Amino acid sequence: MSNIETVRHSLAHVLAAAVQRLYPDVKFGIGPAIDDGFYYDFDFSEPLNEESLKAIQSEMKKITKQGLDIERSELSREAALEFFKDQPYKVELINGLPEGEIISVYKLGDFTDLCMGPHVENTKHLRQRAYKLSSVAGAYWRGSSDNPMMQRIYAWAFMEKPELKDYIARREEAMKRDHRRLGEELELFTVSELVGKGLPLFLPKGATIRRILERFIVDEEVSRGYLHVYSPDLGHKSLYEASGHWQHYKDSMYPPMDLEGQEYVLRPMTCPHHFMMYKSKLRSYRDLPMRYAELATQFRRELSGTLTGLIRVMSFHLADSHIICRMDQMEEEFSAAVELADYVMRALGIRDVVSFRASLRDDEKGKYVDDDALWEKAESMFLGALDKLDLEYEIGRGEAAFYGPKLDIQARNVMGKEDTIITIQIDFVLPARFDISYTASDGTKERPVTIHRSSIGCIERTMAFLIEHYGGAFPSWFAPVQVRVLTLVDAVDDYAKDVIVKLRKAGLRVEEDLRNESIGKKIREGRLMRIPYLVIIGNSEMEAGTIAVRNRDTGEQTTLSLDDFIAGATGEVDDFSLKLSAGDVA
Amino acid sequence: MSNIETVRHSLAHVLAAAVQRLYPDVKFGIGPAIDDGFYYDFDFSEPLNEESLKAIQSEMKKITKQGLDIERSELSREAALEFFKDQPYKVELINGLPEGEIISVYKLGDFTDLCMGPHVENTKHLRQRAYKLSSVAGAYWRGSSDNPMMQRIYAWAFMEKPELKDYIARREEAMKRDHRRLGEELELFTVSELVGKGLPLFLPKGATIRRILERFIVDEEVSRGYLHVYSPDLGHKSLYEASGHWQHYKDSMYPPMDLEGQEYVLRPMTCPHHFMMYKSKLRSYRDLPMRYAELATQFRRELSGTLTGLIRVMSFHLADSHIICRMDQMEEEFSAAVELADYVMRALGIRDVVSFRASLRDDEKGKYVDDDALWEKAESMFLGALDKLDLEYEIGRGEAAFYGPKLDIQARNVMGKEDTIITIQIDFVLPARFDISYTASDGTKERPVTIHRSSIGCIERTMAFLIEHYGGAFPSWFAPVQVRVLTLVDAVDDYAKDVIVKLRKAGLRVEEDLRNESIGKKIREGRLMRIPYLVIIGNSEMEAGTIAVRNRDTGEQTTLSLDDFIAGATGEVDDFSLKLSAGDVA
Repeated sequence: MSNIETVRHSLAHVLAAAVQRLYPDVKFGIGPAIDDGFYYDFDFSEPLNEESLKAIQSEMKKITKQGLDIERSELSREAALEFFKDQPYKVELINGLPEGEIISVYKLGDFTDLCMGPHVENTKHLRQRAYKLSSVAGAYWRGSSDNPMMQRIYAWAFMEKPELKDYIARREEAMKRDHRRLGEELELFTVSELVGKGLPLFLPKGATIRRILERFIVDEEVSRGYLHVYSPDLGHKSLYEASGHWQHYKDSMYPPMDLEGQEYVLRPMTCPHHFMMYKSKLRSYRDLPMRYAELATQFRRELSGTLTGLIRVMSFHLADSHIICRMDQMEEEFSAAVELADYVMRALGIRDVVSFRASLRDDEKGKYVDDDALWEKAESMFLGALDKLDLEYEIGRGEAAFYGPKLDIQARNVMGKEDTIITIQIDFVLPARFDISYTASDGTKERPVTIHRSSIGCIERTMAFLIEHYGGAFPSWFAPVQVRVLTLVDAVDDYAKDVIVKLRKAGLRVEEDLRNESIGKKIREGRLMRIPYLVIIGNSEMEAGTIAVRNRDTGEQTTLSLDDFIAGATGEVDDFSLKLSAGDVA
Repeated sequence: MSNIETVRHSLAHVLAAAVQRLYPDVKFGIGPAIDDGFYYDFDFSEPLNEESLKAIQSEMKKITKQGLDIERSELSREAALEFFKDQPYKVELINGLPEGEIISVYKLGDFTDLCMGPHVENTKHLRQRAYKLSSVAGAYWRGSSDNPMMQRIYAWAFMEKPELKDYIARREEAMKRDHRRLGEELELFTVSELVGKGLPLFLPKGATIRRILERFIVDEEVSRGYLHVYSPDLGHKSLYEASGHWQHYKDSMYPPMDLEGQEYVLRPMTCPHHFMMYKSKLRSYRDLPMRYAELATQFRRELSGTLTGLIRVMSFHLADSHIICRMDQMEEEFSAAVELADYVMRALGIRDVVSFRASLRDDEKGKYVDDDALWEKAESMFLGALDKLDLEYEIGRGEAAFYGPKLDIQARNVMGKEDTIITIQIDFVLPARFDISYTASDGTKERPVTIHRSSIGCIERTMAFLIEHYGGAFPSWFAPVQVRVLTLVDAVDDYAKDVIVKLRKAGLRVEEDLRNESIGKKIREGRLMRIPYLVIIGNSEMEAGTIAVRNRDTGEQTTLSLDDFIAGATGEVDDFSLKLSAGDVA
């Protein structure tokens, strides 16, 4: 059986053959296999619509039923140029091929395409395969805005029908959970073109989540002996020249600003600021480890076309830390940093979708700091610590930073895609570059080592992940609104207001809905906002001095005393307990 | 009797005359009266030191004893140039005088100075006056770094000796309390030349104060119905063109940064960001008031020479808010904003050193938005609300913003100098400029009004004020360290550690000093750090299961149970109680 790449690529030819039958004047671009199927770029004289896609897909079915051979042959450059003379994009591709390169074409019925292959031998092998034309989008020829805009037909393709069905279902779920869509629906954040595309504005509800997560991580870190600080968003360009960021990292940095002849840049990282704090005083071996931490604003230059939601932004906020310690403290500090990240993932309820990747150096010379003894010591400490922590991890050889090994913590989203959300890096280089030192017990000057690490990651990216993971139905401890109080009749308003005051006094985040609307509508709206508890108050509750509570996650409605409810709801906040699994979105 | 300005100015001439006697080759600059005395700029061939100042001051005393006349006369330009031909700075001044200006000189014994006067008639009138040469500093001629550096002799001068004595005492106290000095001594913040002069780095202890104040104000505002948000530190330049900031305020803004042909600027204010949030949805009369609030990073371009400590910085953090409301809600919202500021000043313990200034428009046309009816309505609401709040306030006519009246809250420092720390402004203009609106109950579109306000001011400036006001001896609720545990002997270490765990569990910020040092040294160091409570543990405390507590503010030491101490210390935090008055610095 052919592999899925070959199937997808062959289906792209079938698509092009079908298009040729229906649109004889079409000009062909290219049609590769991609992660979830394939696409083909065409230059049509008219725009396509959903109907056109249906027609093309039935034509494709005919071709696979017909069982046509897909035949390879080779042409000289001259013959190829002659053959494709009415296809300007193909001519451009042929002219771009290096001298002497074999030019192969594949013929499928009346359709012949310039192509390297491989393909299935006959379209009958595609009959049982599962595919669906999914969309049409504009795409510049060869990705450059100087070239003509073509129409790209996308398709999903898998070996078996159940795979495709499952993929489509997961995609639909993912689209419902898209953090940009939920961000708008749940009023978490907004993006204003006038402010800037990669500069999200956190609306009150999103800001509440962010504040809760920020306070959670700061408090947790402070209780673990981190020294939280604040440092400015910018610095002299020379600061980043000293750190080496300017030389190595300039393309990702904002352009410098000239103030009275001095150049300042927005910071891409906080290491230099924290090192300057360390250097504000003489330090002794007794002062170490010093764990500087900060919820730091950082700035990265990103291409405007890549900016999206909270994932890729122009300015973000990292729960950053630089642990400056003695070599003999490194292992313990590294383990504690991993343990903290593990704890945070558990508190956020995402430990099950997280995996660990240990990035080590490979044999490539020049890619890493040249000190074999140091590397061996560091890597054996690093792996030893991971093993002691009893973590499952993969090894990524050749993925270390140039200054030391690092642990990447990967989170897997609803589509199964993995993204790094936290990194813990060991660094032997920057302490020397900034010439930081401590006085050892024998009075000599020693160089400390550093761990760069995060604990909850970049707040924007982590929030995007949490929004999608929970589909907006956040655990009560960081839900922006925990309780909404709904009334059945006006007569209970005073009682409801009294309940609200008591809930707020207990520290719960409460909204009210005392409008003159049907209880059905009120409940529906509360569910749409994914509020963990809807407290429903009618005459019977008022008379009995109770409340009725609808639980978002179980869907159950129970009547209980206000005190019992408060005890349960605040207890859930205190122990980060999560009644919800990722699959239960309302 | 002459007024103090004349006395100070005459003393400057006496100073110059004395210098001429001791340094015949000296070249004279200028010598004006200033707020607390006078100065004179000289070009000496040698640097002055403290001894030189003493010699000059005794020579001045001789001159006042001699009772010399100070005689005015007038010279033609030619005669003046001839007379001062050996004094290049005077020649430059004469050449700078407009044609036709009367050139007057004052003669005091052998010394004659180019001067407008007035002066006392005879130096005997200066005999009873109190003055002291205080310091020498370098100063560029006419304040420009293109000119030669001169030596400026500063002096304090008052009518009576007790005034001078009192002034010097207050100055010494102020210097001890200088937030830059205490910032370093108490390790609150540091400034690194490599990062940038106006870009302070908050060290762990200063960051703790800042975090406590930030959480305090955010929680207080949220409980009062403010909608806390986060918005980015920068935006498209066009955003600030729309708001008018770019046109009116460009010189105080950072230079734009070009990213892919788009210009971005660091924000000087948050109004446009908050307005964009308001505009992210249609708003109805029922949604108002909306009180957007943010702990906002803001950027102002300041001349590097003016940057100092936490007072004048290049980037600061304002507890900012924009209250968007209907005209009929304006009075209530304004009053609530004033009431909040008043509450905050009380919680910080500085209500007694705060005064209010109501800034209204005057008759000058063109300086204010041209709508008399609106102004009359606004000012009468504004003053009416202040009167109802029963606040004492001054009126500053002609000090309104161009878009409406404002209330300035002034704090008076140890030297009696007033600075604005909080402003509450009424604004009729920006809502129209950003075209923000709401749907009224009759379905028509209406324009809301806005209040720009702060509550705790700019965190850097407020912290600078608090550091100086309390001389670093902060109320326990925001002291970075509330308790330090000191041991008398090693034998009690375990008991002390147990006490520390319990104190931390109670939420107190605790340091330990278990070093093998004398208790006298440990107490002295704890006092120097202005820690509210020193808990002292020896064998007798361990045996009795008690602790000895030394109270920073009363200086008393008492023995009590841990539970009683915890109850007292946490209670003090909860009600912001302050045992300390500003005069009691250790």
